[in-house]
Amino acid sequence: MSVVINTLDDTLASITPVDAALLAKAEERLDSLTKPQGSLGGLEEFARRIVAITGELKPRIDRRVVFVFAADHGVADEGVSAFPKEVTPQMVLNFLKGGAGINVIARHVGAEVVVIDIGVDFDFADADGLVKRKVVNGSGNIRRGPAMTRDEATRCVEVGIALAGEYAQSGIIFGTGEMGIANTTPSSAVAACFTGASVAEVTGRGTGIGDEAYEHKVAVIEEALKLNKPDASDPIDVLAKVGGAEIAGIAGLILGAAARRVPVVVDGFISTAGALAAVRMAPDAREYIFASHSSVERGHGVMLESMGLKPFLDLNLRLGEGTGAALAISSIEAGVKIYTEMATFGDAGVSEQG
Amino acid sequence: MSVVINTLDDTLASITPVDAALLAKAEERLDSLTKPQGSLGGLEEFARRIVAITGELKPRIDRRVVFVFAADHGVADEGVSAFPKEVTPQMVLNFLKGGAGINVIARHVGAEVVVIDIGVDFDFADADGLVKRKVVNGSGNIRRGPAMTRDEATRCVEVGIALAGEYAQSGIIFGTGEMGIANTTPSSAVAACFTGASVAEVTGRGTGIGDEAYEHKVAVIEEALKLNKPDASDPIDVLAKVGGAEIAGIAGLILGAAARRVPVVVDGFISTAGALAAVRMAPDAREYIFASHSSVERGHGVMLESMGLKPFLDLNLRLGEGTGAALAISSIEAGVKIYTEMATFGDAGVSEQG
Repeated sequence: MSVVINTLDDTLASITPVDAALLAKAEERLDSLTKPQGSLGGLEEFARRIVAITGELKPRIDRRVVFVFAADHGVADEGVSAFPKEVTPQMVLNFLKGGAGINVIARHVGAEVVVIDIGVDFDFADADGLVKRKVVNGSGNIRRGPAMTRDEATRCVEVGIALAGEYAQSGIIFGTGEMGIANTTPSSAVAACFTGASVAEVTGRGTGIGDEAYEHKVAVIEEALKLNKPDASDPIDVLAKVGGAEIAGIAGLILGAAARRVPVVVDGFISTAGALAAVRMAPDAREYIFASHSSVERGHGVMLESMGLKPFLDLNLRLGEGTGAALAISSIEAGVKIYTEMATFGDAGVSEQG
Repeated sequence: MSVVINTLDDTLASITPVDAALLAKAEERLDSLTKPQGSLGGLEEFARRIVAITGELKPRIDRRVVFVFAADHGVADEGVSAFPKEVTPQMVLNFLKGGAGINVIARHVGAEVVVIDIGVDFDFADADGLVKRKVVNGSGNIRRGPAMTRDEATRCVEVGIALAGEYAQSGIIFGTGEMGIANTTPSSAVAACFTGASVAEVTGRGTGIGDEAYEHKVAVIEEALKLNKPDASDPIDVLAKVGGAEIAGIAGLILGAAARRVPVVVDGFISTAGALAAVRMAPDAREYIFASHSSVERGHGVMLESMGLKPFLDLNLRLGEGTGAALAISSIEAGVKIYTEMATFGDAGVSEQG
């Protein structure tokens, strides 16, 4: 891209709706292919949307990148997760060695995994392959105070925006992913704040806590919202007060993707909290987002619905990392290939619908 | 395989439940991998089931084959489809040239497409690549009489069984697909007969008929059931009287797969009617079947539920051909790779759940 757009304000100003005229143009081609009209449902919709997003009438997907933003959360001290905090850096190293779930699925679908330290409370020194963009050494404990300053939250968003700019190119598709022990807790806080749902409605069991710990988690989030008073009409305020570095980074990646007309596939609960923040900052960004799977985590559906997004994979996933997004990328690519590779009725000598 | 099992009776006798002890054994390994236990939901279930089906503790999928059974239907004369009957052979030729939806998706997921003429009312002569196993020149018009004789229906099932035997090998996965103008009509008749649902509950708009044609289609199916009186407790009787050659072929492929411990992924409405016939003949065959997508066609869910199968792709597909099965194969393969390729907590030095 010739123009560097790395600040939040410039990015928000450069996001425009997708080219709706191209949706109709793409549909025309889809209806000329040897199948009953509309019979490939969601796959046809993927193709139409990719045409309108990219502006390319002969679109292709030849590069797939899943961005895994890693960060720690002070609220882990409140016992809201089944895993200890040290697992965040351990898993980052696992990603870099290729042994995690996202690595396996990314290899399967031909995607690259980009691992970003945006806020892990650990010094990775020269860990090979890690993208070092640390803004905070873990966020603050939201039960006791804000997660970050407003400036830190903005910088996290701009890390995502900058990455989108570095990777944006014709034929690329992005996926979002994350790692951060306790990060369903700030995600639920963000979800409750933006959707107006009660905390219990948007809080699940994360990596797998028991009944008592669950009640405690809900109480912690309620206290965090009461204490920090995030302003739902000011998404950066929400991210700063009750969010987290990786959630803000994901919001930025999505904004950057939308600004550069790159399709972006959103993973599960935490990624969707980031997407919701992005869409609250720039409602048109929604048109560049593809939902992937419906997470087990309670509240995922509430957030997706509030953005008018519909997931299509129903696999009871709750791992995160971008695993559902990576799987979904493959189906979206199948839709694009339907559009570009199928024979038309004319080509194939097949009689049309009566 | 050293033993040739090609008759229906031998096949039914050789289908046994999957090895349930291996389900627990596979779960043990899954729980040692660097993820919260069970957090990859359906993908983990795919892996467990593939282990139990194949009996291989280190399973792999290195060959994927979608079988597209093609046949015509006399009931097309009743105006139950939006497309003319000549489209069946036209689409068969399109499959052979690689221009149809199933070809595109199969290429995308690395699957082979095997096209079988099991009952098309057309002479393909030496069409290159076609598997010629014609049992009937189109089935009879079920509104006027039976679709086939009992012997013909059995032979169609045995075509599927034989194909399963020819392709069965370690590391393979099958997908089912079909082509046959008007074939949602006999599929609805089969569905109503086996599930006890009313015809209207299991009849949809197929390739896209209007309101009036839909009412007519329901009436035609009701008349066909009344006239032919299929015996729901005798699946071959059902396939012969109100089924079709491709539906019976799919039933046979599934029985053959189960007899040879090969996993088989079932596509949409028509394929599921075939699967239901197979499961009624051999209830244990169910354990070898993976559902793929939830079809737009009304009645698909009723059939899946009656077998206890749950689809995981929600893409509003209604093309058939095996398109949904092919897409699903890729996700099932991802589950197997999770099982075999992910690092364990020990390998990766990651702390376990508290």
